[in-house]
Amino acid sequence: MTAPSCWQAAIPSPDPARIKAARSRQNSLTKPRGSLGRLEAVAIALCGQQNTDRPGLDRVHIAVFAADHGVCAEGISAFPQEVTGQMVANFAAGGAAISVLARSLGATLEVVNLGTVSALQPLPGVLDQAIAPGTANLAIQPAMTIGQVEAALTRGDKAAQRAADAGAQLFIGGDMGIGNTTSAAALACALLKAPAGELAGPGTGLDRAGVSHKAAVIQRALARHGDNPEPLAALASLGGFEIAALAGAFLACAARRIPVLVDGFIVSVAALVAVRHNPDLRPWLHFGHLSGEPGHASVLAAMEAEPLLDLGMHLGEGSGAAVAVPLMRAACELHNRMASFADAGVSDGR
Amino acid sequence: MTAPSCWQAAIPSPDPARIKAARSRQNSLTKPRGSLGRLEAVAIALCGQQNTDRPGLDRVHIAVFAADHGVCAEGISAFPQEVTGQMVANFAAGGAAISVLARSLGATLEVVNLGTVSALQPLPGVLDQAIAPGTANLAIQPAMTIGQVEAALTRGDKAAQRAADAGAQLFIGGDMGIGNTTSAAALACALLKAPAGELAGPGTGLDRAGVSHKAAVIQRALARHGDNPEPLAALASLGGFEIAALAGAFLACAARRIPVLVDGFIVSVAALVAVRHNPDLRPWLHFGHLSGEPGHASVLAAMEAEPLLDLGMHLGEGSGAAVAVPLMRAACELHNRMASFADAGVSDGR
Repeated sequence: MTAPSCWQAAIPSPDPARIKAARSRQNSLTKPRGSLGRLEAVAIALCGQQNTDRPGLDRVHIAVFAADHGVCAEGISAFPQEVTGQMVANFAAGGAAISVLARSLGATLEVVNLGTVSALQPLPGVLDQAIAPGTANLAIQPAMTIGQVEAALTRGDKAAQRAADAGAQLFIGGDMGIGNTTSAAALACALLKAPAGELAGPGTGLDRAGVSHKAAVIQRALARHGDNPEPLAALASLGGFEIAALAGAFLACAARRIPVLVDGFIVSVAALVAVRHNPDLRPWLHFGHLSGEPGHASVLAAMEAEPLLDLGMHLGEGSGAAVAVPLMRAACELHNRMASFADAGVSDGR
Repeated sequence: MTAPSCWQAAIPSPDPARIKAARSRQNSLTKPRGSLGRLEAVAIALCGQQNTDRPGLDRVHIAVFAADHGVCAEGISAFPQEVTGQMVANFAAGGAAISVLARSLGATLEVVNLGTVSALQPLPGVLDQAIAPGTANLAIQPAMTIGQVEAALTRGDKAAQRAADAGAQLFIGGDMGIGNTTSAAALACALLKAPAGELAGPGTGLDRAGVSHKAAVIQRALARHGDNPEPLAALASLGGFEIAALAGAFLACAARRIPVLVDGFIVSVAALVAVRHNPDLRPWLHFGHLSGEPGHASVLAAMEAEPLLDLGMHLGEGSGAAVAVPLMRAACELHNRMASFADAGVSDGR
C-alpha cells in the first residue's frame, strides 16, 4: 500500500513555552489555584496547540462522515440501513442534532458521504465522495480493500485541509452509519485485545438478546481477522469508510496544528486507530463526552483520556463533542479575560 | 419569628401536561430514543417549569450574594477575610470568573453585599444591603440572630422579585464569603446528621492539617448547636447571610415559577436548607456541577440531585452553574429545532 500523506506526516508537539506561560497565568488569576478544575487544563492545552497566549474557539469546523456497513446483513442494528442516507438528507435540511448544534455554535458543518447503500441525490452542504455502496460484511471478509482504506483516509485528509483553509481553531469529526457501533467495537477489540462481550453495546437501541447476537457477530469477525493489532490492517479488516476518514482527518489536523475535539464511541475508536499509528497525535486531542455506549470507557482509558461531559448521550454525528464546545469556549474566556490578583488588588493568600 | 413571605409562599408544581407533551416530542425527534441522555430530561423539565412546549434560556439572571463570616477568627481559611470585599470590587470591575462568564452568556449579573468586615465604597452593579459586618463566630455562638436571618431571607426574596421583573427564565445564585465552606459544612452536618470530618474540605486551599482543624471547629459548633435539624434554626445557628439569602431566593423563585440552576457546595447547602423547609421546591432545581469540594456529593445525594458537570471546579460565585448554562441552552435548541422522523422522512426503526 502507498499510504496517503496524512498517514505519513510528522506531527509537531504543542508549544511547551506557551504551555508554561499559560499555567503561570492561570495561577495569577483571581481564584484559588486550581479552582477552575478541568477548564484550566483545557485553556493551557489550547495555548500550546494554538501557539498563543490567548486561545480562541470562534472558528469551529465540524465534518460528519457518513457511510454504510455490510455487516448490517447480520442483523446487528435496531434501525434499517436506509436510515444512513435519510439522515444525510436530514443533516442537509438542518433537522438533525448536529445541524442544530452547529448552527447554535456558529460552527461550519460539512457532511461527507463516503458511500451509502443507495446513491444519494445531490444535497446542499453534502460532499458526495462515495467510495462504494457501503463496506463488505466484516463478519465474513475484510470490510475494505487497501485501496478503499487509502481512499477514505485521503478524504479525511482533505477535510482537515478544508478546515485549515477556513482557519479552523478546532476540528470536530462526526459519524453517521447504521451498523457502525459493530464495526467500531470489532476494531477496538482487535486493538485492545478485548473480547467482543466487553465492547459490544446496544448502539441505537438493541435489547439484551440483540447485544448478545452482536457480540457473537463481532467474535466471528475477530476470529476471521486473527491476532493482528497493526492499526491499518485492523482498520481495513474491521473498520468502515467513516472510521477511516476520521482517523485520517485527525492525523492530518494534528500535522497542521489544529486541535481535535473527539466525540463518542465511534469517533474515539477512530482516534485510537490513529493514536496507535502515531502517538504524537495524542496531545492534540480533547475529549468531549463519555458516551452511554458501554464500550466507550475502555477505549478512552486506552488513550488515558478524560472526557469533559458524562451526560449519557449516545447519538453520534459529533453531537457529544459539539455540546462540549461551550465548555472549551468558557475555558478560553476565563483564561483571557479574568483579572489577576495584582490587577484587581486582591490578596492572594500567600 | 415572623417568617418573611418567601419562607411561607406556596410553591406550585411544574405543569404535568407540558412534561408529558415534551416527553412525547423528544421521542419523535430524529435520533434513537434517549440518545440525548440528560439533555432530554433538562428540556422536558424546563417545559414543565416554563409552562411551554418550546423552552428557552435567553434571559438568565445571576445574583451573587457576598458576606463575611465570624468563624474566620478560628483560622479556617487559606485566604484573609478582606478578600470578600476585594472580590466584590472585582465582580464590579468585571474581572472575576462570574463576571466573565455572565458577559459571555449575555446574562444579567447583580452582586448583593450582605455585610463585609469593612464597609465597601459604592460600586457599580453592587447592591449594598449590609445586615452587619459579618456573622458572629458560629464556633461559639449562633452565627445570626433571628432578625438577621429574616433580613437575609428577605434580601433573597427581593432578588427573586428582580429576576421575575426582568422576565428571567432561569435563576443562578452565587456566593462569595471567605470562611463560608466552614459555615456550609456545619449547616449540612446539622441537616444530614453527619460528622464534621465527612463534610469538611479544603475550601480555597487548606492543607490536610488545615482541614483537620476546620473539622474540629465545625464539631465544636455542632456540639454547641445540639441536635436540632429544623432548617431555619440550623440556618440561624450555623449559616451565613449569603447562605440564608440564597435559600430565600430559591424558595421565592420557585413560588414565581422561575427554575433555578444550583451551583456548588455552598449554594447546594442553601438549596438543601430550602428543600428541607419546603420539599415542593425540589422540582424547580437543576444542578450545574459536582464541586471539587468533597462534601458536595453528600449534599447532592440528600436531594437526589445529579449535576450536569463534574469538572473539579471549586470556585464559588455561581461559576459552576454558569458554565453549565450552555448545556441547558443546547437542550432547549435540540428540543425546539430538531426535525421529527415524520417531518424528515426518516424511518424510525419501529
